[in-house]
Amino acid sequence: MQLFIGNQNYSTWSLRAWLIFAQNDLNVEVVKLKLFSEGFYQSLAEVTPTAKVPALIDVEVVVWDSLAILEYVNEAYLEGKAWPRSPKDRAKARAVSAEMHSGFFSLRNELPMNCRASRKVELSQEALNDIARIDAIWSEQMALYPDGWLFGEWSIADAMYAPVALRMQTYGIPLSAQAKAYQQRVLNSQAIQRWLAEASLETDIVVEDEAGEPV
Amino acid sequence: MQLFIGNQNYSTWSLRAWLIFAQNDLNVEVVKLKLFSEGFYQSLAEVTPTAKVPALIDVEVVVWDSLAILEYVNEAYLEGKAWPRSPKDRAKARAVSAEMHSGFFSLRNELPMNCRASRKVELSQEALNDIARIDAIWSEQMALYPDGWLFGEWSIADAMYAPVALRMQTYGIPLSAQAKAYQQRVLNSQAIQRWLAEASLETDIVVEDEAGEPV
Repeated sequence: MQLFIGNQNYSTWSLRAWLIFAQNDLNVEVVKLKLFSEGFYQSLAEVTPTAKVPALIDVEVVVWDSLAILEYVNEAYLEGKAWPRSPKDRAKARAVSAEMHSGFFSLRNELPMNCRASRKVELSQEALNDIARIDAIWSEQMALYPDGWLFGEWSIADAMYAPVALRMQTYGIPLSAQAKAYQQRVLNSQAIQRWLAEASLETDIVVEDEAGEPV
Repeated sequence: MQLFIGNQNYSTWSLRAWLIFAQNDLNVEVVKLKLFSEGFYQSLAEVTPTAKVPALIDVEVVVWDSLAILEYVNEAYLEGKAWPRSPKDRAKARAVSAEMHSGFFSLRNELPMNCRASRKVELSQEALNDIARIDAIWSEQMALYPDGWLFGEWSIADAMYAPVALRMQTYGIPLSAQAKAYQQRVLNSQAIQRWLAEASLETDIVVEDEAGEPV
């Protein structure tokens, strides 16, 4: 099984797909491609119709898009346990994951993931609204599952929001106490520590993902 | 069970969620809210944290976002049969559904769904690229499953692409023969005919979704 990802310093969607393997000790060969290089498009064109990362090849199965990969791995290798067991929580976890999958554009544009950096940015009202919504999701779940992942056990919802925890750190975004506790839980996790260690070895700069002023 | 939707003439995401009920003869009480009216936000604020349609309430379960609703209904009422049975097809169906869920922005912006209208528009290169990608998905699947839905049996992927079939008709977009055959299959389906009949009774105008020149 091969997982194609982009630069670990920058590629949020790669991180989301990678996490389900790291969190569950599943073996996968990670193929890292330099974002937006010529080799990037060439390599991916042979694999997926969209030429985007992440992409997964599992014998005859080809899956692109982070959410589709997460659903696939969950069904094929985890017997469904990467979503919460209760129908109510599973529905909510899917809803907040879908929110991240198709939304939060201001946050994504104004606060690109940049693991190694510490930056200061001026935010639009829309980005502040995105941050407030994420703070609300995290603190609501921490009230239900204190000291846990968003739904108690680790789930795909945690994969979807992990890059946001990193962004909040890079740009020093203030959070409520409960949301901060969740962010720290994510940042201190073994899987994220491993991702950060690997990202720190990279030296490539992707100009469009460099935002804000150094602090 | 209550499904909250917007104006049927305009609301693509509402149509996607509504279709899984219509295609599978599942009972649901449809609550239609006028898009962007004061009542729209008030009614939804009591139901979902995002105040967007579609939203589903099933006793204690609340689900928002079309894809999350489709996954929920599939698991809770259809024993999983709204995704293709084979892992390979299921992975591909999820990947193309995810592409629609998080992408095709130029198509979505320049060709808003407007069921009752016939219009002419000038398209950007990005919108033309979106159309070419959709044509490729449809014709590839028609080559695999002639005269069928995208993956043979009706699936959530067909729900995700149904509004595009309507858009292609409203704006007279040329398609390859195989993609055209799929579009006709969608337009002639009982469920879409029912949606169009209901949409035709609406008289409200949503200005931001009126694009192009009448033909």
